[in-house]
Amino acid sequence: MKIITFLTDFGMKGGYVAQMKGVVSSITDSKLIDITHNITPHDVREGAFVLQNSVAYFPVGTVHVAVVDPGVGTSRRGIVVTTKSQILVGPDNGLLMPAAHFLGDFIVYEITNNKYMLNSISNTFHGRDIFSPVAAHIVNEVPFEEIGGRIYNFIDMDFGKGKITGRTATGKIIHIDRFGNIVTNIEGIRLRDFLDYGSKLMAFIGDKQQEISFVKSYSFVEKGQLLATIGSSNLMELGVNQGNAARELGVKPDDEIKILFY
Amino acid sequence: MKIITFLTDFGMKGGYVAQMKGVVSSITDSKLIDITHNITPHDVREGAFVLQNSVAYFPVGTVHVAVVDPGVGTSRRGIVVTTKSQILVGPDNGLLMPAAHFLGDFIVYEITNNKYMLNSISNTFHGRDIFSPVAAHIVNEVPFEEIGGRIYNFIDMDFGKGKITGRTATGKIIHIDRFGNIVTNIEGIRLRDFLDYGSKLMAFIGDKQQEISFVKSYSFVEKGQLLATIGSSNLMELGVNQGNAARELGVKPDDEIKILFY
Amino acid sequence: MKIITFLTDFGMKGGYVAQMKGVVSSITDSKLIDITHNITPHDVREGAFVLQNSVAYFPVGTVHVAVVDPGVGTSRRGIVVTTKSQILVGPDNGLLMPAAHFLGDFIVYEITNNKYMLNSISNTFHGRDIFSPVAAHIVNEVPFEEIGGRIYNFIDMDFGKGKITGRTATGKIIHIDRFGNIVTNIEGIRLRDFLDYGSKLMAFIGDKQQEISFVKSYSFVEKGQLLATIGSSNLMELGVNQGNAARELGVKPDDEIKILFY
Repeated sequence: MKIITFLTDFGMKGGYVAQMKGVVSSITDSKLIDITHNITPHDVREGAFVLQNSVAYFPVGTVHVAVVDPGVGTSRRGIVVTTKSQILVGPDNGLLMPAAHFLGDFIVYEITNNKYMLNSISNTFHGRDIFSPVAAHIVNEVPFEEIGGRIYNFIDMDFGKGKITGRTATGKIIHIDRFGNIVTNIEGIRLRDFLDYGSKLMAFIGDKQQEISFVKSYSFVEKGQLLATIGSSNLMELGVNQGNAARELGVKPDDEIKILFY
Repeated sequence: MKIITFLTDFGMKGGYVAQMKGVVSSITDSKLIDITHNITPHDVREGAFVLQNSVAYFPVGTVHVAVVDPGVGTSRRGIVVTTKSQILVGPDNGLLMPAAHFLGDFIVYEITNNKYMLNSISNTFHGRDIFSPVAAHIVNEVPFEEIGGRIYNFIDMDFGKGKITGRTATGKIIHIDRFGNIVTNIEGIRLRDFLDYGSKLMAFIGDKQQEISFVKSYSFVEKGQLLATIGSSNLMELGVNQGNAARELGVKPDDEIKILFY
Repeated sequence: MKIITFLTDFGMKGGYVAQMKGVVSSITDSKLIDITHNITPHDVREGAFVLQNSVAYFPVGTVHVAVVDPGVGTSRRGIVVTTKSQILVGPDNGLLMPAAHFLGDFIVYEITNNKYMLNSISNTFHGRDIFSPVAAHIVNEVPFEEIGGRIYNFIDMDFGKGKITGRTATGKIIHIDRFGNIVTNIEGIRLRDFLDYGSKLMAFIGDKQQEISFVKSYSFVEKGQLLATIGSSNLMELGVNQGNAARELGVKPDDEIKILFY
């Protein structure tokens, strides 16, 4: 059975997510999986990060409906993004694009054919009225070209991948979690080729330079100490054991980061 | 595959919803969809509102189990409500009835046949012990008359539908959300036949009279200003941009409202 | 369709649960049911209690993945526990064992065969990388002996069952909920053979002795009064109406309790 996932900032209280699932289930029989409905309201970047982290684990053919959509009701477009293996449906505000870059070989279609939307379209809830029925019709194998034309001027967002050359890794900060832990786009699996747990690193972030221990997890350094580790997204993270690394280092998403291995 | 939905005030922490789903899955193979489990504890009216809003989007044959049940363990009855297209199961306390009125042509049966309940019935959890197994047996096409006899003296609750005559809409307040926004039973789709966004309305609520702008969404008026809009439930809502309309107007559910279009 | 359930302390925000479900769905087609993801972080005992309470209601063949796992990344083992009717997968820290004792006739296997894990195993997320794929392979009928060898020195946890002899019930406290209500391992269904609602009991807890009313539910005594009742888990609970019984009686999990019926 094909899978449709849902990622929103709606919370669960009002029944909005259920309305989306009802719409989908009226059109097709698929397995419905929640990614999360607790994205910080209107935080497109956070939604994009969680979506990108999740898609890797889903099977070929999964359709992801993502709705963090502060521009709903304005002229922002709705899009379908096809990739090598999975399909993304949502607003054209960058939300889908890190997942698209991650999945690879993507093509973006604007959703224009109202044959695949609900009859009555609200100004405030395109997740239910447009994105959910479009996703269900995709599961039913409606051709993408039927849904709308290909576009090239979509709003992009790309967390990218850090580079490791010789004894230097360079990348950027792509996410700061609610504890102030700093997630970079430097892949953990490649770091492990160069580094043993317990090694020291030199990190350059903004105008700061700081020696850091590379450890297996947060509790391997003293309380208050800075550390680098590989998080569950398989990305290098910087943190402070029981502290707030982002505040301490004064950094924010998109800041560049350089790491020297001794 | 048939769908069973769940709406409760149980929260997700204690595993109670899972117990209901386990019971259902022991009797029938159906698709299980959560409407919400975050209804304010014991708030039957809020549960009724969210249920009524959700049913419209589900396919024919869906069975909805709703449990906001402050009277559990007393003599309040359990009921099955059949309608034109979907089935409702829960306590006889009004919770199911706005959805029943909305879906139309409803018949109410009291649940009495303990053949369709769990063997051991707790005093505190009829959602698991009675309503879930009954819903599963309904999916298995047990006739309604087998479950119990038809009753006429059920506890009713009806949000009704506002009326639009000439240049006047009359209705009532059916829900006040946690931001103080006021949801009425006046249908938005009909308002749009009379009104352009940007028009002015005159609203009479209780003994107050107030001019209001009819706008596409909350952000189309200044902070602190009163507005009327069509919400995602396709109902006319009154709100204050970044403020609490219900408190400002001193209104409550069931208060009557009259709107004049100029 | 076979069922896989999920119980964790991950919350829903970060998409971790969805990653587990994506992994499972990449290996097998099963019905996925959440028990809860809101276990107090690292509270293995609370997780064990909710799991034990839930398993009774699931059909034969259900596979439960439970992850409350403060020892992840250390040398703690992963286990599969088969029982008379259902299967449990998770860390070897006691979490699964009360459910295993409840289900009966259990056998514990250590998970060692990396053929049934993800290719890349993180230090922090065995729920996704080991327990979920193992559960999916079990649904696909991989023999337990293929997953790993039988072990006998697993970490046990057993809530046990209280005893009723003559006019005395003895047992222990197995859970204190967030309201301070005290759940014992004395089965309610057996109490009802001895007691009518409204009877008085004499309770001995630690060095305290206290007369208590046995009532149908919390509201049957005055505010502030101690009561005994049968909760929805069908276990004897002690509570204070609108108060905190555990704090008042100064008790904690595993404390022994003795009840005399007059």
